[in-house]
Amino acid sequence: MNHLQQLYGHSLALLTDLYQLTMAYGYWKTGRQDQEVVFSLFFRKPPYQGGYTVSAGLNNALELIEQLHFTADDITYLASITGNDGKPLFEKDFLDYLHQLRFTCNIDAIPEGTLVFPHQPLLRVQGSLIQCQLLETALLTIVNYQTLIATKAARVCQAAAGDIVLEFGLRRAQGIDGGISASRAAYIGGCVGTSNVLAGKLYNIPVKGTHAHSWVMVFPEELEAFQTYADVLPNNCIFLVDTYDTLQGVQNAIQIGIKLRQQGHEMAGIRLDSGDLLSLSQHARRLLDQAGFPDALIVASNDLDEYTIQDLKNRGAAINAWGVGTKLVTSYDEPALGGVYKLTAIKTPQGIWDYRIKVSEQTIKTTNPAILQVRRFYNDQGFFLGDMLYDILQPPTQTPVLVNINDTQKLLKISPEVAYEDLLVPVMRHGKATITDNTLEQIRQHLQQQLQRYPENFKRLNNPDSYPVSLEGGVFLLKEHLINQIKQSKTRYQM
Amino acid sequence: MNHLQQLYGHSLALLTDLYQLTMAYGYWKTGRQDQEVVFSLFFRKPPYQGGYTVSAGLNNALELIEQLHFTADDITYLASITGNDGKPLFEKDFLDYLHQLRFTCNIDAIPEGTLVFPHQPLLRVQGSLIQCQLLETALLTIVNYQTLIATKAARVCQAAAGDIVLEFGLRRAQGIDGGISASRAAYIGGCVGTSNVLAGKLYNIPVKGTHAHSWVMVFPEELEAFQTYADVLPNNCIFLVDTYDTLQGVQNAIQIGIKLRQQGHEMAGIRLDSGDLLSLSQHARRLLDQAGFPDALIVASNDLDEYTIQDLKNRGAAINAWGVGTKLVTSYDEPALGGVYKLTAIKTPQGIWDYRIKVSEQTIKTTNPAILQVRRFYNDQGFFLGDMLYDILQPPTQTPVLVNINDTQKLLKISPEVAYEDLLVPVMRHGKATITDNTLEQIRQHLQQQLQRYPENFKRLNNPDSYPVSLEGGVFLLKEHLINQIKQSKTRYQM
Repeated sequence: MNHLQQLYGHSLALLTDLYQLTMAYGYWKTGRQDQEVVFSLFFRKPPYQGGYTVSAGLNNALELIEQLHFTADDITYLASITGNDGKPLFEKDFLDYLHQLRFTCNIDAIPEGTLVFPHQPLLRVQGSLIQCQLLETALLTIVNYQTLIATKAARVCQAAAGDIVLEFGLRRAQGIDGGISASRAAYIGGCVGTSNVLAGKLYNIPVKGTHAHSWVMVFPEELEAFQTYADVLPNNCIFLVDTYDTLQGVQNAIQIGIKLRQQGHEMAGIRLDSGDLLSLSQHARRLLDQAGFPDALIVASNDLDEYTIQDLKNRGAAINAWGVGTKLVTSYDEPALGGVYKLTAIKTPQGIWDYRIKVSEQTIKTTNPAILQVRRFYNDQGFFLGDMLYDILQPPTQTPVLVNINDTQKLLKISPEVAYEDLLVPVMRHGKATITDNTLEQIRQHLQQQLQRYPENFKRLNNPDSYPVSLEGGVFLLKEHLINQIKQSKTRYQM
Repeated sequence: MNHLQQLYGHSLALLTDLYQLTMAYGYWKTGRQDQEVVFSLFFRKPPYQGGYTVSAGLNNALELIEQLHFTADDITYLASITGNDGKPLFEKDFLDYLHQLRFTCNIDAIPEGTLVFPHQPLLRVQGSLIQCQLLETALLTIVNYQTLIATKAARVCQAAAGDIVLEFGLRRAQGIDGGISASRAAYIGGCVGTSNVLAGKLYNIPVKGTHAHSWVMVFPEELEAFQTYADVLPNNCIFLVDTYDTLQGVQNAIQIGIKLRQQGHEMAGIRLDSGDLLSLSQHARRLLDQAGFPDALIVASNDLDEYTIQDLKNRGAAINAWGVGTKLVTSYDEPALGGVYKLTAIKTPQGIWDYRIKVSEQTIKTTNPAILQVRRFYNDQGFFLGDMLYDILQPPTQTPVLVNINDTQKLLKISPEVAYEDLLVPVMRHGKATITDNTLEQIRQHLQQQLQRYPENFKRLNNPDSYPVSLEGGVFLLKEHLINQIKQSKTRYQM
């Protein structure tokens, strides 16, 4: 049983926008349902004006597809939906067809935990028009959110520069599964654990936590509260010291720490959850050191994000571990990744691929046509040089000419000796997932390797340099050609 | 079967932070588990610096509690969690106890769809210490998020001033259930429908939608795409006109609209999803009117929120219906409500309620003690006058003295003739939900009635006046007394 089945216990075929079903009906009704197409899932801007984005959510998306079918219950519901005239929107034969439908598409995708960039297909879905269309919304929901949170977590961990980062966000997450998939994505991004027990169970993520203010408030005195906790859980003691007076709380923790040591245990540390974390942590560190607890951790929480952590570290805060909640799991400063899913190719009845484009007055919103692969070039030391999008049916020549995607005046030639890797790999064939080396641990490691190979100037949290992403020359010309075709074939209105 | 059971198919007992379980273990191990306590769930600041907040999520929270129990599977997982020394964190007898545990608490709460304000208990949970503690995280997850989205939706609908507002956010929602509970809360807040089919099925919310850009891109020409859609779904035609050239798209829609009318159907409208919505809508309106389609709707979408809608309406946009997605379901400009859940009273072995408080250097973070009820006063016309928090064990006198919660210098006397209502009502007794008149339709209506009775100066979207929320004089004095007690009993450190 996969994770989504464990969590939901049933197919999520209705987790979609109604228009996917009305379009599906239209395709079926006009005999287009089996036409072979290619859709690409990509985003247009990196979150946080950051230098990188971390792909995530793919494996959950594949799990969703593997178990996808319209149940009898789903069909009954769909039969009840009416159009503007009060009559059923869908005819019975179509609903019978849906009830029988199983998902058999092929997907090539960039594995989770990879650094990805605007305009690159994270997933390329190939299959029958009706199936590819019906997958759109759920794929976007899963991949958009997890990619966003994995990226935010990677940035938070980057700011923490090797310190422990824990994800504590469930209570402020956007819904139940908002919390669970945030824990998964945060772990991919580099957090070492979560407070979320259900996420821990589902995904085998280490779970962490000791006690809250309420524990202290239940007792007449803070000291008694700490003492009692230590009696019960002597090997899980991180005392929250700010219920009443923070530094008095530290002294109380030290008193109990001394007793614990006499009994052969060691206090793990203290937690600060309010006030001026800089001065409180420094003061607490001195008190702990003077009392003989140089190894006791100081954990900080309270509305932390990468910027606060970076600032506190720059100013010399004596904090060893960071509990990050709201601002991580909601991606507070940018709570959505604007990923889209666009048709890029459709096979004609003659078996020829016909490439499609959506134009827009906003250049960034004009899509890239063709069946795209992403090639990443590396320098001699293995560091990323730049990426190229190319058409798999027109692979680049020995010395490809690249057109910078943000500055089409910038041409680049890549010498044939440069090492490269194609990022999209087969992950689903005929509706069955085909990737195997994809435990969360492996995905985490993959991300760390990626970050090590990604040059510092692109990686910094503020104002990073722009990593070069280019279109292979042939795709660039094709795109220009398709844009011109649309311009010429339409009567233009003057606004 | 309740909605959460339908969605998840099993208990969500592990949907909690680990520290709730370690504290529960501590309570159990020291014989405190059955001590009777009261917790309050409240928030400290209204979202968006707005003039009101809309309570939501309660019924889902009750559903969660009604089915809550630790399954054998959950217990096996908990037995595998280890402490710092690698030994199991929980002893077997405690896990056996958890396995048997059923939730039997009492809850009084403010019904969904009510206007609520900072410091007011949305829920007041009374029961055994261990049960109340174990509920914290899940209650916060559900109530925080739905309250946030219901409030955002109410603001968006307020800006739309009677126009149709549809929620289209699933693809950008934070996780699967982020999308589903957003649809529920948005409907409470005033949206008339959602694109999310699963939310429609679960909660009986009207589902809406026609077609996407991909439908147009599948066909060689836009006109053919519209024609085909009209052939298949003649009574569900809102044409998306911006795939290539927006005003050409409007002309194409009109052509098909004329044919539809000849066949006895009526085009419902068009949708604009990019570009300058002001000028495009005005231009499209003229074209539609000139062609004899004055009733065709112009639906707009593309990163809308209450501010954009207000601005477009002020500038005379010819838009009749608003599709709101990302910025609604993620509450983009403030993606979390900081609701908390605090112990306010604990019963001594002698059967006396002992009131508790958490102090903080930040005054706003100091909790209000006692078992609180919220009394709302109304003027002769039924408009809201102000709210009072009082201790149910010390009900206010005939002419209560109120202390303004934000400005403790401001005293207020309420004459005995003023009409009032107590907002918290019994919603759960001994673990069973006791409210019945709580269909989503009733909750929606309740909110509309509340908004009608809420004066304009408090309601406006920008810089509203501050609605008066006060502590009953006795509670105020009690709070001062408890703060002084803590100050005196602790050694104070100088920073």
